[in-house]
Amino acid sequence: MEYPTGIGTSDTTTIHLLGHDLAGELMGNVGFGELALWLATQQRPTPQQVRVFEAVLVSLADHGFTPTAIAARLTLYSAPDALQGAMAAGLLGGGSRFLGVTEDTGRFLAGVLATVEGQLPESDAQWDALARQAVTAQRAVGRFIPGLGHPVHKTVDPRTAVMIAIAEREGLRGPHLRLFEAIGRVHAEVLGRKLPLNGAGVAGAALADIGLPPDLLRGVSLLARAAGLLGHIAEEMRHPIAPAIYAAVDRNAVYQPRLENDGTEHH
Amino acid sequence: MEYPTGIGTSDTTTIHLLGHDLAGELMGNVGFGELALWLATQQRPTPQQVRVFEAVLVSLADHGFTPTAIAARLTLYSAPDALQGAMAAGLLGGGSRFLGVTEDTGRFLAGVLATVEGQLPESDAQWDALARQAVTAQRAVGRFIPGLGHPVHKTVDPRTAVMIAIAEREGLRGPHLRLFEAIGRVHAEVLGRKLPLNGAGVAGAALADIGLPPDLLRGVSLLARAAGLLGHIAEEMRHPIAPAIYAAVDRNAVYQPRLENDGTEHH
Amino acid sequence: MEYPTGIGTSDTTTIHLLGHDLAGELMGNVGFGELALWLATQQRPTPQQVRVFEAVLVSLADHGFTPTAIAARLTLYSAPDALQGAMAAGLLGGGSRFLGVTEDTGRFLAGVLATVEGQLPESDAQWDALARQAVTAQRAVGRFIPGLGHPVHKTVDPRTAVMIAIAEREGLRGPHLRLFEAIGRVHAEVLGRKLPLNGAGVAGAALADIGLPPDLLRGVSLLARAAGLLGHIAEEMRHPIAPAIYAAVDRNAVYQPRLENDGTEHH
Amino acid sequence: MEYPTGIGTSDTTTIHLLGHDLAGELMGNVGFGELALWLATQQRPTPQQVRVFEAVLVSLADHGFTPTAIAARLTLYSAPDALQGAMAAGLLGGGSRFLGVTEDTGRFLAGVLATVEGQLPESDAQWDALARQAVTAQRAVGRFIPGLGHPVHKTVDPRTAVMIAIAEREGLRGPHLRLFEAIGRVHAEVLGRKLPLNGAGVAGAALADIGLPPDLLRGVSLLARAAGLLGHIAEEMRHPIAPAIYAAVDRNAVYQPRLENDGTEHH
Repeated sequence: MEYPTGIGTSDTTTIHLLGHDLAGELMGNVGFGELALWLATQQRPTPQQVRVFEAVLVSLADHGFTPTAIAARLTLYSAPDALQGAMAAGLLGGGSRFLGVTEDTGRFLAGVLATVEGQLPESDAQWDALARQAVTAQRAVGRFIPGLGHPVHKTVDPRTAVMIAIAEREGLRGPHLRLFEAIGRVHAEVLGRKLPLNGAGVAGAALADIGLPPDLLRGVSLLARAAGLLGHIAEEMRHPIAPAIYAAVDRNAVYQPRLENDGTEHH
Repeated sequence: MEYPTGIGTSDTTTIHLLGHDLAGELMGNVGFGELALWLATQQRPTPQQVRVFEAVLVSLADHGFTPTAIAARLTLYSAPDALQGAMAAGLLGGGSRFLGVTEDTGRFLAGVLATVEGQLPESDAQWDALARQAVTAQRAVGRFIPGLGHPVHKTVDPRTAVMIAIAEREGLRGPHLRLFEAIGRVHAEVLGRKLPLNGAGVAGAALADIGLPPDLLRGVSLLARAAGLLGHIAEEMRHPIAPAIYAAVDRNAVYQPRLENDGTEHH
Repeated sequence: MEYPTGIGTSDTTTIHLLGHDLAGELMGNVGFGELALWLATQQRPTPQQVRVFEAVLVSLADHGFTPTAIAARLTLYSAPDALQGAMAAGLLGGGSRFLGVTEDTGRFLAGVLATVEGQLPESDAQWDALARQAVTAQRAVGRFIPGLGHPVHKTVDPRTAVMIAIAEREGLRGPHLRLFEAIGRVHAEVLGRKLPLNGAGVAGAALADIGLPPDLLRGVSLLARAAGLLGHIAEEMRHPIAPAIYAAVDRNAVYQPRLENDGTEHH
Repeated sequence: MEYPTGIGTSDTTTIHLLGHDLAGELMGNVGFGELALWLATQQRPTPQQVRVFEAVLVSLADHGFTPTAIAARLTLYSAPDALQGAMAAGLLGGGSRFLGVTEDTGRFLAGVLATVEGQLPESDAQWDALARQAVTAQRAVGRFIPGLGHPVHKTVDPRTAVMIAIAEREGLRGPHLRLFEAIGRVHAEVLGRKLPLNGAGVAGAALADIGLPPDLLRGVSLLARAAGLLGHIAEEMRHPIAPAIYAAVDRNAVYQPRLENDGTEHH
């Protein structure tokens, strides 16, 4: 049985990563974001792709006291002897509700683009037509458009325009971003109200345009969030807030038995 | 109850991270490694610190089929619907045996330096004297020197010299690295055999010299490893090997009941 | 802000769980499986429900060297200082492929039963008719029947008949089990081949018949598996096999760069 | 390469667990707690051992809104698609501070008993002498006595006397419990204040007396806690409180940059 891999191998005197000598060629010459993208695709990224990738990672790294950050802090408080557990607990919140938008948006856009493969729109008007069709179809089956709307940034998500500008500057404003922008222009016609394109969604579009498959986008969000969690864990070590959060919840606990179907309480 | 934080806050139109406008100031201007270091310390790193930090992250990102990488792949195979679980499972192996060396080395060196605080050695001879004393003391209590020796790289770990050279080039070859190098020179006198300074250990020394406290070093290893795990997860999605690993283990399972103390088997 | 809960509260001299005095009423009087079911539903289970529940937990507790057990062992090997990480890594494999069948089966059966609410079949012939309809509908949309077939137990899963007999004995062979059995009888007519009803599926049906909602069934599988993982972790501590698994994989690693689309290799 | 195991094997028609036919011999005949203990030790437990084990599991299963329960709820809120992540996040808090007492106590008592191996005390007075010596030695090196004192139950932990009574009733009040009780009697003489023997500590003593090694005790706590987490996850699905906890923390976040050593703020 052989286990093929393009990632890395090592022997007594050398370590190879991605076919290169880790110590002799990579350390000091390749950035961490660059290496991460390279590991994800096993294809050496261009400087332009790396700049877009790093901008996305920066945009997703942290959002303050999210549920994932709070979970990591509480876990550190309970198990200070195992920092890896706190980091893991934080990442485990990287599911459908909080970190999932990036993946969902990339997948949705890729799905729409797959329907016109080989004959992508060119003008903005053509993109708008495709977007209108996609939004209408989604609405017909009662589904949301991933990446549209945000619980906090109700009118505009400041990251969206910046990310599009960075991709444009790097020559990487491709079909996923073009379609996402078109959705931003036309959705109000179909849905009857104007929603912002959110920053997690534009991140998904930008990552898809640098060649990452939808299945990997959640992984990119998790890598970005690992940096944010490192920040939360470091701050929690210096100035703990988890004990106060725990105390606030515990102090306000009120016993309430579950009601039976017949309305009587059951202990 | 207030929860103070220096990490981030957001309102309906802006997101602030580390006191800066995320979209307007950070995205596109700050690298991912730079942001991670900044989040960890809440002090804006210098370009020199960032270069050392990224070199460390690159050096620790992956080591091929480690137990952590295999655990992540098996978890993805079992639960392909939750990539975050595979990433978390991989990071949970970031404990004392595999990723712990970086932290242990940083902590050991910091402990030795604390004994001479205020009057650090200057010449190599002085560093050697301090190192000799530290190695002797550690041996006296029957403990290993963290960062010394490596199961695979038995004579030389190729990352060590490169990391020291990078720190030197950036003006950040500080007391932790100086002491670690001295240990490399003198330990054979005390221990009776020559061992290499390993790459995970030199990473700990370099991180300590850019100002990270020992308690955080495991977190840095985990961030680095998140990139490696992203690579393994991506490869596993394209070319799965977990089913073959599982089959190989299961096929070679041999039932062997635990023996009782009196030598009889017990079912 | 108040946080209502029916689980537990404590003050300086008493601990209450589920409205009862933990020390005075529960310890020594309530079994662990009984307590787990009570915690899950917040309704005191009958002895019959407890016996079915415990039989299900026993049936799901372990399956030898599954990917989840191997992942837990590798994690313990990497991080022996944090047993909780090994346990968590093992549970993280509790997703769609390995532990998901129990949940999927319960959900599928509940969905079919919801279509005939208020007028459940009575005779076996009526159950067969409903099952035939459900299998046909599932086949029409190209979906598998959850709980049907097993990679190892290709003709019969020994757990299935035993679980049905236990539920019958306890007076809890309800509509989910009846429907599942009917699927076992009729599916070959529709699908053209005979498959066994698997043990994870029958567990889902039995749990649904004692009143657990489909959303919780994965949680029950995880609780059961926690016992199995405890066994694997204990055995790994006494007789480690993770180092040998790791060595076998690492030794058989073969570097294989990813091919570019044009067929050239890319480093 | 063979992988020996005493846990389980299966072929196309049978599943064996611990050398027994799972379907034919175990399901319906063996309780879940019994199976868990058997898996942990690979030695068939006596009914007396099972009753003590189940009482311990019941005593440790839940403590209301602990940090681990809150972390699990927040993780479910973030990632409702992966219940296993919520369960794992909760268990990851099972470290030194919250669940560690059981293990620490068992290990401490086993260590003291190892010093008098072969000639265990018999009378209470002899146990008191040994306990006095152990408490004094621990105090001399500035360490706490594991299992002594509790943040909430400041005068008495109601679980302690009940657990001792159950062990006594089952004929399993062995040397670990005897020593722990003696510590409860004599520590005030040495430490100058009276502290209660806590319930997590007595659990560790009781588990040690039924033959579990200290290294496994954290695993038992985790199994117990898995039932509590199942309860919290189930309740969170019915009546979510995680959104309110998140909102309360986020709403009370106050930006506070880290101060530099010279007192100036740094962004």
